[in-house]
Amino acid sequence: VNCRSDRTNICVAIREQQNAGYLPDGTTRLSREGAPLRHFMGCSTFAEATVMPEIALAKVSAEAPLEAACLFACGLSTGLGAAMFRAPVEPGATVVVLGAGMVGLGAVVGARLQGAGRIIAVDLSEERLELARHHGATDTWSGGADVVERVLEETGGFGADFTFEATGDVSVMRQAVEAARMGWGQACMIGVAGRGETLEIVPRYLITGRHVLGASFGGVRGREQVPKLVDRYLAGDIDVDSFISHRLPLDRVNEGFELMHRQDGIRSVITFP
Amino acid sequence: VNCRSDRTNICVAIREQQNAGYLPDGTTRLSREGAPLRHFMGCSTFAEATVMPEIALAKVSAEAPLEAACLFACGLSTGLGAAMFRAPVEPGATVVVLGAGMVGLGAVVGARLQGAGRIIAVDLSEERLELARHHGATDTWSGGADVVERVLEETGGFGADFTFEATGDVSVMRQAVEAARMGWGQACMIGVAGRGETLEIVPRYLITGRHVLGASFGGVRGREQVPKLVDRYLAGDIDVDSFISHRLPLDRVNEGFELMHRQDGIRSVITFP
Repeated sequence: VNCRSDRTNICVAIREQQNAGYLPDGTTRLSREGAPLRHFMGCSTFAEATVMPEIALAKVSAEAPLEAACLFACGLSTGLGAAMFRAPVEPGATVVVLGAGMVGLGAVVGARLQGAGRIIAVDLSEERLELARHHGATDTWSGGADVVERVLEETGGFGADFTFEATGDVSVMRQAVEAARMGWGQACMIGVAGRGETLEIVPRYLITGRHVLGASFGGVRGREQVPKLVDRYLAGDIDVDSFISHRLPLDRVNEGFELMHRQDGIRSVITFP
Repeated sequence: VNCRSDRTNICVAIREQQNAGYLPDGTTRLSREGAPLRHFMGCSTFAEATVMPEIALAKVSAEAPLEAACLFACGLSTGLGAAMFRAPVEPGATVVVLGAGMVGLGAVVGARLQGAGRIIAVDLSEERLELARHHGATDTWSGGADVVERVLEETGGFGADFTFEATGDVSVMRQAVEAARMGWGQACMIGVAGRGETLEIVPRYLITGRHVLGASFGGVRGREQVPKLVDRYLAGDIDVDSFISHRLPLDRVNEGFELMHRQDGIRSVITFP
């Protein structure tokens, strides 16, 4: 069971479109004391037993400890997938990752696995930036209004080959677009914005050759690709343990939510026997 | 010599970045009665003789009549290139082209040459829509606020595989994004917006899999690809003559500008002996 601050936001986005919270047949199979409960993200992982659509399942290596494997269920895979599948980073490329929470850190790892030449991670927290360095960031910057100027300065005025937005703030999304390279830069949105907010793009950035794209779950095909990502963890390519900041038993689950709201740590994992 | 309404706008955009109007070495080689004149788009085609950078030249087939070949210098190639090179339309795809001036009509032709299954052209002018049908549009709609809803209705709620924006109006650009297909739709901006205007994108459209991109000159590599496009005209694949609405001698060049401002016809070609 994996508490993830971005899951809630993503859920809102998906629910808008798919009326999630119910199984594909429109029913709910969960109840508490007779009252129907909806399935969070179609799963409801805090239940002891649950009915899930078969397509929601992926078979991962039995060798993978569940404490680590659970992180691949969303945030980590979202970041990895964005840099590996949705906007595949090219060897030697310059990459900027805006936001170094779970999703952004996943993108840092993905960029490293793809052979990026330079990975600039931007965040407000020095602790997160340290973690980004541990995972392969070559440069770490404290975020601010001058990010675009700094990226341009450091890239001969052109911008980065790939930028990844992992905060969900539309003004940071705009920075991701404007920091992407003239000619071929790709700006990939993986953070989830608040309802009603819009990303403003000066069309000239498009006309002069940038791509703007995005993904939910990093464009990862869950059933096929999550098991492969877990295998890379087992092969030692991804230090998943470093993302687990807290471990809590199920009866302290509400503490996990508090930690999440305080942005204390990257991930709290709920365990039960 | 080719009068094109979009050339002026594109020039503004390029000039902002490259300080165009001068040759790459920063000089001007044109003058009138001793006063220096700048090179329009690095060429200044209304001069009887001009110095141009070698990279600005493309060698086209000697068989191509100049009256038709000149249209490949910008607007027509911009539309063709967007649908053929920048966002290459796939065989059988559903395509929406917003705006049926020279650039949009070029995109209609490009989509047809790529084997699109359905090409929906949208414009306010019935005359232009008729021309769009002549060039391969399978559906022609009078533009309006309901374009996105209509595209969704006609595509099972999903949107078009490719959309091309060829008006330069940022609200139409937004329609192009929102009419692109969930999962993989590409929205390609080829119109040039006014200075200071921004395209507003609801990030959810990106998260759910759409690409937003753009191109100047349709992403066409002038020297290599313009000659090939001219060859397709000579092979009978592109009815260029149908785009030439007026032919004027050089001493009536100002009439050409008036026709352009009135949006009278698609292109006026200036001839001189």
